[in-house]
Amino acid sequence: MSLDRRDPEGAIAGAAKAYSNWGRWGEDDVLGTLNFLDEAKRREGMALGRRGVSFSLSQRFDMNGPQKGWRRRTNPIHTMLMTGTDAALGNQGSPHGIGGADDLITMPLQCSTQWDGLGHVFDHGKAWNGRDAQKVVTADGDLVTGIEHMAAHVAGRGVLLDVGRVIGVGGGTSRSSGAGSRGELPDGFAITEEHLTATAEAHGVIVGRGDIVLVRTGQLARVRREGWGEYAGGDAPGLSFTTAGWLHASEIAAIATDTWGFEVRPNEFEGAFQPLHQVVIPNMGLLVGEMWDLDALAADCADDGVYEFWLTAAPLPITGAVGSPVNPIAVK
Amino acid sequence: MSLDRRDPEGAIAGAAKAYSNWGRWGEDDVLGTLNFLDEAKRREGMALGRRGVSFSLSQRFDMNGPQKGWRRRTNPIHTMLMTGTDAALGNQGSPHGIGGADDLITMPLQCSTQWDGLGHVFDHGKAWNGRDAQKVVTADGDLVTGIEHMAAHVAGRGVLLDVGRVIGVGGGTSRSSGAGSRGELPDGFAITEEHLTATAEAHGVIVGRGDIVLVRTGQLARVRREGWGEYAGGDAPGLSFTTAGWLHASEIAAIATDTWGFEVRPNEFEGAFQPLHQVVIPNMGLLVGEMWDLDALAADCADDGVYEFWLTAAPLPITGAVGSPVNPIAVK
Amino acid sequence: MSLDRRDPEGAIAGAAKAYSNWGRWGEDDVLGTLNFLDEAKRREGMALGRRGVSFSLSQRFDMNGPQKGWRRRTNPIHTMLMTGTDAALGNQGSPHGIGGADDLITMPLQCSTQWDGLGHVFDHGKAWNGRDAQKVVTADGDLVTGIEHMAAHVAGRGVLLDVGRVIGVGGGTSRSSGAGSRGELPDGFAITEEHLTATAEAHGVIVGRGDIVLVRTGQLARVRREGWGEYAGGDAPGLSFTTAGWLHASEIAAIATDTWGFEVRPNEFEGAFQPLHQVVIPNMGLLVGEMWDLDALAADCADDGVYEFWLTAAPLPITGAVGSPVNPIAVK
Amino acid sequence: MSLDRRDPEGAIAGAAKAYSNWGRWGEDDVLGTLNFLDEAKRREGMALGRRGVSFSLSQRFDMNGPQKGWRRRTNPIHTMLMTGTDAALGNQGSPHGIGGADDLITMPLQCSTQWDGLGHVFDHGKAWNGRDAQKVVTADGDLVTGIEHMAAHVAGRGVLLDVGRVIGVGGGTSRSSGAGSRGELPDGFAITEEHLTATAEAHGVIVGRGDIVLVRTGQLARVRREGWGEYAGGDAPGLSFTTAGWLHASEIAAIATDTWGFEVRPNEFEGAFQPLHQVVIPNMGLLVGEMWDLDALAADCADDGVYEFWLTAAPLPITGAVGSPVNPIAVK
Repeated sequence: MSLDRRDPEGAIAGAAKAYSNWGRWGEDDVLGTLNFLDEAKRREGMALGRRGVSFSLSQRFDMNGPQKGWRRRTNPIHTMLMTGTDAALGNQGSPHGIGGADDLITMPLQCSTQWDGLGHVFDHGKAWNGRDAQKVVTADGDLVTGIEHMAAHVAGRGVLLDVGRVIGVGGGTSRSSGAGSRGELPDGFAITEEHLTATAEAHGVIVGRGDIVLVRTGQLARVRREGWGEYAGGDAPGLSFTTAGWLHASEIAAIATDTWGFEVRPNEFEGAFQPLHQVVIPNMGLLVGEMWDLDALAADCADDGVYEFWLTAAPLPITGAVGSPVNPIAVK
Repeated sequence: MSLDRRDPEGAIAGAAKAYSNWGRWGEDDVLGTLNFLDEAKRREGMALGRRGVSFSLSQRFDMNGPQKGWRRRTNPIHTMLMTGTDAALGNQGSPHGIGGADDLITMPLQCSTQWDGLGHVFDHGKAWNGRDAQKVVTADGDLVTGIEHMAAHVAGRGVLLDVGRVIGVGGGTSRSSGAGSRGELPDGFAITEEHLTATAEAHGVIVGRGDIVLVRTGQLARVRREGWGEYAGGDAPGLSFTTAGWLHASEIAAIATDTWGFEVRPNEFEGAFQPLHQVVIPNMGLLVGEMWDLDALAADCADDGVYEFWLTAAPLPITGAVGSPVNPIAVK
Repeated sequence: MSLDRRDPEGAIAGAAKAYSNWGRWGEDDVLGTLNFLDEAKRREGMALGRRGVSFSLSQRFDMNGPQKGWRRRTNPIHTMLMTGTDAALGNQGSPHGIGGADDLITMPLQCSTQWDGLGHVFDHGKAWNGRDAQKVVTADGDLVTGIEHMAAHVAGRGVLLDVGRVIGVGGGTSRSSGAGSRGELPDGFAITEEHLTATAEAHGVIVGRGDIVLVRTGQLARVRREGWGEYAGGDAPGLSFTTAGWLHASEIAAIATDTWGFEVRPNEFEGAFQPLHQVVIPNMGLLVGEMWDLDALAADCADDGVYEFWLTAAPLPITGAVGSPVNPIAVK
Repeated sequence: MSLDRRDPEGAIAGAAKAYSNWGRWGEDDVLGTLNFLDEAKRREGMALGRRGVSFSLSQRFDMNGPQKGWRRRTNPIHTMLMTGTDAALGNQGSPHGIGGADDLITMPLQCSTQWDGLGHVFDHGKAWNGRDAQKVVTADGDLVTGIEHMAAHVAGRGVLLDVGRVIGVGGGTSRSSGAGSRGELPDGFAITEEHLTATAEAHGVIVGRGDIVLVRTGQLARVRREGWGEYAGGDAPGLSFTTAGWLHASEIAAIATDTWGFEVRPNEFEGAFQPLHQVVIPNMGLLVGEMWDLDALAADCADDGVYEFWLTAAPLPITGAVGSPVNPIAVK
């Protein structure tokens, strides 16, 4: 798929139509491409936990996170309802020496490592499966495709495509000096189908139907070193709009990246905002993860040369949510 | 272990001392009994995903949940930052027909299916591993044993002990008529070591070092049928104080139940409050889960007679949290 | 105005048209009847603070308030960010012995004593002054008539109409025994124009243009004695739909009651929901206050026979809010 | 009072002792210097509302406010529970054409215009009136001096001291060029007793017992022009530590400024943190307001030469709060 930059509306509409999965799993579907992740796929994935080592792919949910208020996205506010200090000083009035602590959180569901639910993005007023956005996601939440429906499904074969490491190395593509030498793509770098397939080939791994694909750009490693900057909402490496066809044809169940927005920023069309989201969420029904921390897993994969694993990334079943924080666990 | 009801302070102190794991994993330990869950155990667990069928063991995070404000625990408040309605009506000003929805949550970390972190309970001002509670959990959160440290660890072999089904059947122990016949223990029913071992035997399953043990009482099934009532904070079936020895000797990594408080309520000592928590969390370092939904998994286990499975129950790495919501996934 | 119960739609439409103030203060108006409260009125009000005694007319903002989750309205959740306990134990690391405490609140803006903003209610998709509701109050808040615009205005002459005391006394109208004898109207009691004018006459007070009128039903006194019950969202005494004409003709600036919903509940039309709101907020532009605590002020007025006073009830200027908590202060 | 910069501990202890009001209003006092604001004072204040013009002295409570997370202080998060968009599209299912909007806020109580409660600051583990901080402000809030106790009291005579205008004009004291010429004091400018009395004299106003004194530095005007920068928590003009004696001797009821922290920042002792707070809140029992917007009022006072007015600044009675947002209303 080539990119015609002169006609964003047309390009988006074309891709939306070409790669639509509307109706593919019936009128009532609330799972989208998660339908590809079946029991056979899970059995295949379960065979990959050979060493028994586990990795958390979640960033922390932390007051000092990257959010700065864009789209009213703030960092989590974590407060204590009861403390050890009060327990130690006898302020809790509990019997026999017991004391307790409790806590509370307020957070946008997109503040840190997260899944985008199927109700997170619309295309010309249409939500996943061709439904009217205005009847699906109201102020009462997502009344149809709330992320609670995915609660039991997101566990299967995971594949890491460390594009930062494979493409970024020695990269003359790097904007900031030395970025490439650390296995990082520069901001604004558009990952194409060619990059994805070359990376898979370099890793000796095959991406297939029902897989959960993790694409590492290295941006998180960079901001971890240099400071958050505009990590949440700013420029970033990410998938090119032109990968829509590959995302569709590969029949993967889900994809996640170490960036805030999955696709390349700035977007490839002038004046556009997340056109690949517009194609893959409402039209393709693809589950998209963002702000994942793939660095420790990637280091291990580089060590042992094994880029496939068992992955569990279950969203919290928050009724009517259009996204969910998640702590994905990879086991090799 | 027998129960001397005349001396709660003495009984608690005795159990705390007898079953303490302080220092067992070094001065700096932040994992407690999760240390039992090693890579060998994970390999053993990974072999259990034979059919590839997955179960979510999480209740929903829902405004209409069981919380009524006890200990300032409320149900989650989920609000939308952007809606499909606004997207459809063109209120979002986004280019090329894209629209979006975002959301926010405010919730006590103990409001629904959850893990108790090691900083959740203290014994006479002492937190896990003998630390001073007042230096561990302040208004800034758990500065030492925050649940973020467990992020990568909680994935291993799970075992279901469906005590409700094995002990509750035909039960003259039932207070409300017919409860026993549905595989449910009545409120106030104290599950003893004998019940646990009899259940394991009936299931043909062995509980061992590093396991994550799930104890089903059937209370959640009952309140789902009859209404929440006092599910959050009220009377409940649960583990007897006398199981402390078994919990210690078995060297399990974690335990979870389908009740709000894990142990039997009312507690077995007059005027006591959660004495088993007081022993197992700060002294034993045991990871305790509450309000899990074990019903669908239990039905499947009853069907195929297999009560062991691969279990991933990763807490959200909320910095300094003393608990975490979780969507545990069992795969058989 | 008589009440035709057979045609709620017609009655509402008729009143909406008859008592509309659309355009009265120009196309751009964001104040509604607050326009009646001018400087002359304020000078008149300032003369009423003769004794210098002040009354707070606010209920507390308290976790143990009346809300039960109806319309996702919960009680406030107040948590501490820093505590005196930590300060005393030296956990704050501050120099020279200083310590501090900070706190946080999460609350629906309608949870306790409050003003309804002009964007709180719509009539057939129309907001105040004839604007399209869908362009005024989106998920981004009230973009036009947000309560911040009223910040400086709500200070003027207050008049108490203690209908509970005047009409409720000895009342055969009372449902619960003895309610009338305490100066309380029973739930479901519809206060008519006749009740309002009889009460003003009994008090020897005249209601005029630009006044802020406080109507006491006594319901709050009753629930304070008997328990919250369904105070927030349930049955209540309150203004009859038929008072719409009086509310319009009197040219008052604002009105507030000691009930959750200002108008009588159940409403006077079968199947209706707050029809008087539907007339007075979007069509008349009237500022409506709810859940005010008028009891201490009313006792004082009964004592000295003076039912007029200086009243300041400034909403918090929360950008885009459709309501605001308020602590109204009456000075006599 | 002169300033000995070599001995901060000693200077603070000396001032704390010299200007203590502990016990002055009895053992059980919860009002501090608000005790000075009596009915006679209110009568005096009520006489000042001559023109009937009112001013809101509150900044907005806005997502785009100055907070950046220091001390976990964030800007308010305002979300909608119901919207006009949903009402217009018929998503609410309400009868007869009525629609509604509701909203929710999460905010630190110190995020914008606010009062510091008496439980906000401690001195060597002591709270107001000599109480133990650890027994007064726990994780359950301020159990003794919660701001709800002040609900009815904060209405009286207000006096504006526009130090920015009087002292800042033509000021060689200004760090940033031209600041003085706009009636603004530069950051780090310490306002002394001499500045206060010179300002009062220039205004022709007398500060007396029971007054609520508003000190304008002009910093808010500057940040409004130049961007928030470090307005919340950074350097600022403000009261010198040496004004403690004047604050005590004048017997004012309360004081407020247009800065985040009332006293000069950086503080006048090396390594100190808010030493004047440490003296005036826990020892003197003084009510302190911060982040007030005094600019419109100050412009009017400069116009008509009248610097006294009726002021109502009632905190929300949030149970157990150590601070409260407030919309203060001045009437001249």
